[in-house]
Amino acid sequence: MKKIAIYGKGGIGKSTTVSNLSAALSLEGYRVMQIGCDPKADSTRNLTGGKSIPTVLDVLRGTKGPVRLDDLVHRGFNNVFCVEAGGPTPGIGCAGRGIIAAFEKLEELEAYETFEPDIVIYDVLGDVVCGGFAMPMREGYADEVAIVSSGEMMALYAAHNIAQAIKNFAGRSYATLSGIIMNRRNIENEEALVEQAAREIGTEVIGQVPRCGLVQEAEAMGKTVVECFPESDMGRIYRSLAVQLVGAKVSAVAS
Amino acid sequence: MKKIAIYGKGGIGKSTTVSNLSAALSLEGYRVMQIGCDPKADSTRNLTGGKSIPTVLDVLRGTKGPVRLDDLVHRGFNNVFCVEAGGPTPGIGCAGRGIIAAFEKLEELEAYETFEPDIVIYDVLGDVVCGGFAMPMREGYADEVAIVSSGEMMALYAAHNIAQAIKNFAGRSYATLSGIIMNRRNIENEEALVEQAAREIGTEVIGQVPRCGLVQEAEAMGKTVVECFPESDMGRIYRSLAVQLVGAKVSAVAS
Ligand SMILES: Nc1ncnc2c1ncn2[C@@H]1O[C@H](COP(=O)(O)OP(=O)(O)O)[C@@H](O)[C@H]1O
Ligand SMILES: Nc1ncnc2c1ncn2[C@@H]1O[C@H](COP(=O)(O)OP(=O)(O)O)[C@@H](O)[C@H]1O
Ligand code: SF4
Ligand code: SF4
Ligand SMILES: [Mg+2]
Ligand SMILES: [Mg+2]
Repeated sequence: MKKIAIYGKGGIGKSTTVSNLSAALSLEGYRVMQIGCDPKADSTRNLTGGKSIPTVLDVLRGTKGPVRLDDLVHRGFNNVFCVEAGGPTPGIGCAGRGIIAAFEKLEELEAYETFEPDIVIYDVLGDVVCGGFAMPMREGYADEVAIVSSGEMMALYAAHNIAQAIKNFAGRSYATLSGIIMNRRNIENEEALVEQAAREIGTEVIGQVPRCGLVQEAEAMGKTVVECFPESDMGRIYRSLAVQLVGAKVSAVAS
Repeated sequence: MKKIAIYGKGGIGKSTTVSNLSAALSLEGYRVMQIGCDPKADSTRNLTGGKSIPTVLDVLRGTKGPVRLDDLVHRGFNNVFCVEAGGPTPGIGCAGRGIIAAFEKLEELEAYETFEPDIVIYDVLGDVVCGGFAMPMREGYADEVAIVSSGEMMALYAAHNIAQAIKNFAGRSYATLSGIIMNRRNIENEEALVEQAAREIGTEVIGQVPRCGLVQEAEAMGKTVVECFPESDMGRIYRSLAVQLVGAKVSAVAS
């Protein structure tokens, strides 16, 4: 099992990228679990036909009886296992702690042992890399971190903070940084800016995703580009990014 | 003393708006204190010639001896008192708690009694309205909340969450919501979208700020539009928004 956390600034395209990667990896034959760790709880919507699934925190809050795994893990496109951690009541409680609570519940209910995913992808908001949001970076939760960024200043600022958080954990054998996925906003000099930032951070650009209207077209149907337009350039780009991201290490365990 | 918290999604223009409002209010004769509550700690940069000031958390972390008020409160344009709460070490600790710690230190050192501001404006990140970031909404910290939003979906989503957080506090005499400041991104139907959202939230649009290149020109000099281009339309817009925002209540105490 390989566990990858994808971080980045809010709105940068994490969920779009992650759900296309999940869809692509499922088509490669992997068993994939996608865990949304953004209070917005819309990480998996394009795997579930645009429907919102109940979040782990909502279920934990609402249940009188015992919680069952099937309440928390929902099948999406091509049987991708979809989970949304959810967030606290606005203004009260800690979103970070919510993520922790969700993870602990999944472990307690033996989600990984039950569904045996080959790949787990966490989709994590990176605006505030506080203790709670850094949770998936810790050993046991994620092996690798990839950062989604455009060339925009604030996206790169977030990328820098995320990389710093990983460094602050280094030596304690937490997750390693695999690199930056560049999601284009078509700003001037974008490629140079992102590559420069990657160098400063001490990592590399592992893939480029162009800005493309098919994303919105697919989204309007509650789908990924990979599902909707598999033969498009964009579909191919996501698929080859997916293969590259999981690398050789996982192929051994692929079913 | 009137205390206003300005919330909104990261990158939406909170700091730009707030620092122009602070500058404008200082020109109206008010004693203004601006407190940045975003881990990015760049809220006041356009009041200080583009320079970063040390954050409260940095000072608290770095100091061997006792902390003095002058280490935390810096004079900016027209004597606006500038404070940056700062953030935790990325990946470790809680940004929300950092804000709380900064507030407590300012109180302990009697910042308000010493500088006697007529108006305190908090500039707060609204992507995650967790317990920590909701702090300035609580009684004693802010009397009123205004939300900066464009018509973009994610900005309105954040606005909605912030309003929800205020409602969750209501009845316990916390801050009230004064409305939405619309900072245009020039998306289609923007005015209607923001007004629709305001209605849903049960509030109103209290002002409109156009998208304007003078912001970037001023920013490049580390200044506000109000300072740099006082006679421009944009300068006038910020000044009249400022007057409207503080309303009649404060004029009595204005020096
Ligand atoms: N490569 C892309 N091309 C076109 N639109 C994109 C692309 N990536 C993301 N988007 C758009 O940006 C919006 C925000 O993306 P999302 O994945 O929800 O961001 P995040 O999860 O980082 O908050 C989406 O609604 C989507 O339409
Ligand atoms: N009304 C405006 N017109 C033009 N540019 C703006 C306007 N408001 C904000 N900006 C730009 O948007 C960028 C982000 O704004 P900022 O105030 O730093 O956002 P926030 O504090 O919400 O993160 C700024 O660098 C500024 O150049
Ligand atoms: S993360 Fe920090 S502020 Fe939030 S609940 Fe926990 S200790 Fe409190
Ligand atoms: S740990 Fe993060 S999410 Fe939790 S209260 Fe602190 S800043 Fe908010
Ligand atoms: Mg998302
Ligand atoms: Mg700001």
